Amino acid sequence: MSCVAELATTRAADGPAPAQAFAAGSPRVLVAGATGFAGALAAHLLWRHPRFELVAVTGRSEVGRRLDDLYPRYRVPLQIEQLDLDAVGPLDAAVVAYPHAAAAPAVAALRDRDARVVDLSADFRLASLATYERWYGRHPQPALLAEAVYGLTELHRAAIADAGIVANPGCYPTASLLGLAPLARAGLVADVVIDAKQGISGAGRTFDETTHQSMAGENILPYKVAEHRHTPEIEEQLQLLRAAAGASDELAVLFQAHLVPLDQGELADCYVTTTRRVEDAELAELYAAAYADEPFVEVVGAPPGTRDVQETNYCRVFAKADAHSGKVVVLSAIDNLWKGTSSQAVQNLNVMFALPEAEGLA
Amino acid sequence: MSCVAELATTRAADGPAPAQAFAAGSPRVLVAGATGFAGALAAHLLWRHPRFELVAVTGRSEVGRRLDDLYPRYRVPLQIEQLDLDAVGPLDAAVVAYPHAAAAPAVAALRDRDARVVDLSADFRLASLATYERWYGRHPQPALLAEAVYGLTELHRAAIADAGIVANPGCYPTASLLGLAPLARAGLVADVVIDAKQGISGAGRTFDETTHQSMAGENILPYKVAEHRHTPEIEEQLQLLRAAAGASDELAVLFQAHLVPLDQGELADCYVTTTRRVEDAELAELYAAAYADEPFVEVVGAPPGTRDVQETNYCRVFAKADAHSGKVVVLSAIDNLWKGTSSQAVQNLNVMFALPEAEGLA
Amino acid sequence: MSCVAELATTRAADGPAPAQAFAAGSPRVLVAGATGFAGALAAHLLWRHPRFELVAVTGRSEVGRRLDDLYPRYRVPLQIEQLDLDAVGPLDAAVVAYPHAAAAPAVAALRDRDARVVDLSADFRLASLATYERWYGRHPQPALLAEAVYGLTELHRAAIADAGIVANPGCYPTASLLGLAPLARAGLVADVVIDAKQGISGAGRTFDETTHQSMAGENILPYKVAEHRHTPEIEEQLQLLRAAAGASDELAVLFQAHLVPLDQGELADCYVTTTRRVEDAELAELYAAAYADEPFVEVVGAPPGTRDVQETNYCRVFAKADAHSGKVVVLSAIDNLWKGTSSQAVQNLNVMFALPEAEGLA
Amino acid sequence: MSCVAELATTRAADGPAPAQAFAAGSPRVLVAGATGFAGALAAHLLWRHPRFELVAVTGRSEVGRRLDDLYPRYRVPLQIEQLDLDAVGPLDAAVVAYPHAAAAPAVAALRDRDARVVDLSADFRLASLATYERWYGRHPQPALLAEAVYGLTELHRAAIADAGIVANPGCYPTASLLGLAPLARAGLVADVVIDAKQGISGAGRTFDETTHQSMAGENILPYKVAEHRHTPEIEEQLQLLRAAAGASDELAVLFQAHLVPLDQGELADCYVTTTRRVEDAELAELYAAAYADEPFVEVVGAPPGTRDVQETNYCRVFAKADAHSGKVVVLSAIDNLWKGTSSQAVQNLNVMFALPEAEGLA
Repeated sequence: MSCVAELATTRAADGPAPAQAFAAGSPRVLVAGATGFAGALAAHLLWRHPRFELVAVTGRSEVGRRLDDLYPRYRVPLQIEQLDLDAVGPLDAAVVAYPHAAAAPAVAALRDRDARVVDLSADFRLASLATYERWYGRHPQPALLAEAVYGLTELHRAAIADAGIVANPGCYPTASLLGLAPLARAGLVADVVIDAKQGISGAGRTFDETTHQSMAGENILPYKVAEHRHTPEIEEQLQLLRAAAGASDELAVLFQAHLVPLDQGELADCYVTTTRRVEDAELAELYAAAYADEPFVEVVGAPPGTRDVQETNYCRVFAKADAHSGKVVVLSAIDNLWKGTSSQAVQNLNVMFALPEAEGLA
Repeated sequence: MSCVAELATTRAADGPAPAQAFAAGSPRVLVAGATGFAGALAAHLLWRHPRFELVAVTGRSEVGRRLDDLYPRYRVPLQIEQLDLDAVGPLDAAVVAYPHAAAAPAVAALRDRDARVVDLSADFRLASLATYERWYGRHPQPALLAEAVYGLTELHRAAIADAGIVANPGCYPTASLLGLAPLARAGLVADVVIDAKQGISGAGRTFDETTHQSMAGENILPYKVAEHRHTPEIEEQLQLLRAAAGASDELAVLFQAHLVPLDQGELADCYVTTTRRVEDAELAELYAAAYADEPFVEVVGAPPGTRDVQETNYCRVFAKADAHSGKVVVLSAIDNLWKGTSSQAVQNLNVMFALPEAEGLA
Repeated sequence: MSCVAELATTRAADGPAPAQAFAAGSPRVLVAGATGFAGALAAHLLWRHPRFELVAVTGRSEVGRRLDDLYPRYRVPLQIEQLDLDAVGPLDAAVVAYPHAAAAPAVAALRDRDARVVDLSADFRLASLATYERWYGRHPQPALLAEAVYGLTELHRAAIADAGIVANPGCYPTASLLGLAPLARAGLVADVVIDAKQGISGAGRTFDETTHQSMAGENILPYKVAEHRHTPEIEEQLQLLRAAAGASDELAVLFQAHLVPLDQGELADCYVTTTRRVEDAELAELYAAAYADEPFVEVVGAPPGTRDVQETNYCRVFAKADAHSGKVVVLSAIDNLWKGTSSQAVQNLNVMFALPEAEGLA
Repeated sequence: MSCVAELATTRAADGPAPAQAFAAGSPRVLVAGATGFAGALAAHLLWRHPRFELVAVTGRSEVGRRLDDLYPRYRVPLQIEQLDLDAVGPLDAAVVAYPHAAAAPAVAALRDRDARVVDLSADFRLASLATYERWYGRHPQPALLAEAVYGLTELHRAAIADAGIVANPGCYPTASLLGLAPLARAGLVADVVIDAKQGISGAGRTFDETTHQSMAGENILPYKVAEHRHTPEIEEQLQLLRAAAGASDELAVLFQAHLVPLDQGELADCYVTTTRRVEDAELAELYAAAYADEPFVEVVGAPPGTRDVQETNYCRVFAKADAHSGKVVVLSAIDNLWKGTSSQAVQNLNVMFALPEAEGLA
């Protein structure tokens, strides 16, 4: 893949660590933490991917069990192994699906062997170490932060292309930022409230009162009121976008999350107080321009249901001015496990290895 | 029903208090429109009510079918009849569960016979005829508006006690207003965004793409963006509350509704920009004071799931200051068909007939 | 309650240990194991029951937490305690909601204090100790078996009335036996296959792959093929019914269970090979006669959905001859947690204390 | 595709009308009736199929609307047209997704133009005209029956390969027959009861009480007791299989269907009385041998949940002897819309056009 090599070269001078170009044949990829929902889906997508070779799936539990026994629908006929980088052979890339704090050491070990990493945890999403430590405690690998690129593909495609570490966004930030980016970039966001809802898969392979069908079913459950960890991630990225439009003030986002009784699906409703009056015609132009060339963002003319994008890498965005209140409402729908997590990881891998961005995702 | 006029008289002297006790025997009640979800549940609650006599259930369709055949779970063994006020005999009260515009003429006919009415439609909810006609078109019975009291029991108990027409609130206004009232009454609401979600029963006995399990299931569906009819109802009531605290400016509410895949349950998230900084301690006091004596509003210390109040007349309210954004988040959970509609109608009937407010609802 | 005393007297000669009549006032009842679904619902029903006094709820976990915190909808404002029969004061009765083997010792301790017990476990359901031990291992209290009455109210009402221990049936046997009893009693059952389905609440407050919404949802899950523990319970009771009609041969039931993605509801489809040709007219007579006086069994003319009986103590039974195959199909629908478990326990308590059988259950 | 031409030749002598080999390039396919669930999914699968060209989607309603507006998830960007065979150009094949009786005339018109047809209706499933007319009334095109092959791929692959009309099986027969075929072919089926359950998508794009989420949710609904139209289809095919083993007696199947609250998934439980005692070891051999070379039938060692095969063309089969009753239990799980309908149609098209059988289905 000469283009990747080139990218790696041009990038070497000014960026984080040079990415490794893969040898002839398909890039060899590992999924670490394949027993959880995110890792299992990443393994599924990579297994059926025409261009990557999934060489191993590892887990911190269920070792020895086959992944297609644990997740029959995903049909990945590999045995779950313990992570052993010596045994796994040469690696071009890895998806790390560990909880925060556990991820960073695994990422470091993979980087030591020159594998490029898409990390699904929160460990490398925040550029600011101080912000990270306020929310998550001590960072296990602060030195690697400089090497990480925020993996919302649509916002950082170029940097992702030759990043050593791609910090895959949280599902809430993915939906929220794709909804807000066109307004933020235009300097129009003065204030924003985000009310997000997602299916129970968002709670992961966790067995407790939030996931038991007789408790989660027939329920709408708001959680983490005024304390959601996704806020700083959204704010930091919004700040970058707004700064490009000249804004220097800080924006305090109010974000509220909910679980609703379905499996996969997520909707972020963004209520934006704009810096000046915005009409529907301007919104239409702004969003069309922002996403005209994006393969996975669809600006739609009617409120999107999450079912419309279930099991796809698409994000559907709908923006409308509310003449009555003067605010703008932006609705952004994704599949929390796909574009919100695992298929975006594959989208990023495609970008990182200079493959067609939609390869394996259509 | 001379008793209503009398009540108005006797009551005038000292305020809410003495509602008229009904004559010997139980008040005779009719449910008009019992084939829909709201009317059927009202019939169920009145049928099992120890103090009311449900004398007839009527429908504009399904005439001749038994209600317990249409709704087996509700176990009301009455035949659905066509509405015929001559045939039904003396009536003390009626619940009218018709669509807007169809309701007003039925209410008028019932008032002509002195039956007191709880109307579940939007026809009498707005005091302002102009506002009504902006949203719904020509009002069929504008003369009756003066006789109507807004039936959010907790806000208008005294007036409900001897009203001829009680305009039962919409489910969204019920949840929203119970969440916002303490803040509004204290003059603290400068701006509010309401994001509300409810189960599919909110779409009623409607057979289409919004209710088909294979379309409504696994979906989160936002609807009526920037055009929801419940907005004026919320605004008018909020204005009354704020005016009591001296506010004279108008408040433009931004309200957004969603359907989520469950049957009964509703959550309103109210994002309030306050007129001054408010801390949790003040919120705790404010809400405790507002609802200490309310039998059906519970101020809770953790975010309420809608399942907690399913098939009850309770509203659970949770308020929290978000230090980060400076806003206040109020969550209000109800069962959209119970407190949001039919059990609140019974609560109002209890008040109207001077019965213990929780009678038949515990 | 003189009638209970009388019953106890008449029974003393020929039955298990005499039941204790309760003193003036309401019988004092304890629920042991109130943290699980069955115990919590039993506590709810007894708390709102007009004639019993729920004196304590105990748990083997969650001690100190309030039951209405664990199960908000049930609204039982009691603290979960450790089981301490010395501390709890005089008891007239108890519902024991423990797993099998753990239940028997608790039942024994309660019997030592003359409390009458409804046991929800399998420990006392089988009259045959040998059968019990084949399925469950060593019985902890074999001596108490003689004192136990099988608590399918409709089959053993008289014996339940003065039993010391009522072994509340499993939910599957409840639905199956109510469906089959009229045929069995008439000597018409030559062979039977039972295919039963129930909601996820049937798995109880268990947190694992069978209850996680993202695994249990969108799934139909058959389990325990050719090994279900409810088989002997069904067979033993069927044998009693068939023996009354002169049958002496043994009947081997094939029973198959499934979990389907709803909360509460259970349907048993019984496919009966009859001893002779049976037509619909005879079935209609047979079932009408069998259940004409039963307050909680409804013979219906159309296939019953489980939703029709959700959150009720009713069982709906539908029987139809299949002219094509010559077999009879009997469908029996209950709420697995209500008639299948906890409301049947209350029905039994009503019978045991000579209260109207539907008290607290309507 | 010379092999198809060859097949057509070898077949011409002894079978129905010769099938048309398609010209250079991809076979051109039409989906008639693409507005329903089955047709829409067939269109989706053909649209993304690497070897077929989907040239048009037609509907008897929704004409002019885009299919990806009606079914966003399927992403087929074609406009729904009225069926006009003159306008559509040359066709190699068509999938007809019409109701029975409406399908046959469309099939006839397509055959007139030499298009090969996979018909999803019941019109050509029964070889016996008499049986068809007993269940469905007058057959609109009895002359075409001779040309039709029953499209359960695993049973009739060779005949399907060059059939002019493939009668795609019903979803219930698909699951049932794949479960029973190995036993039937070995002459082991003496009697069988089938209890089948499927998700709400099985009711199709029908808007009524069986599909409304507030009625279908939290429900298990048995339907068509002792009268299910799928019985003769199952019986006719079973008879063919049993006859091969020498059985000449007729078998009367008892089949019972249920709707359960999920979207896509179907389980058939087959309770088989065998002609002689059968043990697990023999079952294991029998099923392994039957399906060893089948790409889409998986013999599994644990009871299959329908979720395991959701949105796949796989059928999972599990067979177990019940030593207690002497019967054999066979569980067969499919996705009712995929292997039960539309993906099996594509599997058949692959066979008809000599493509790899799994093409477009993996």
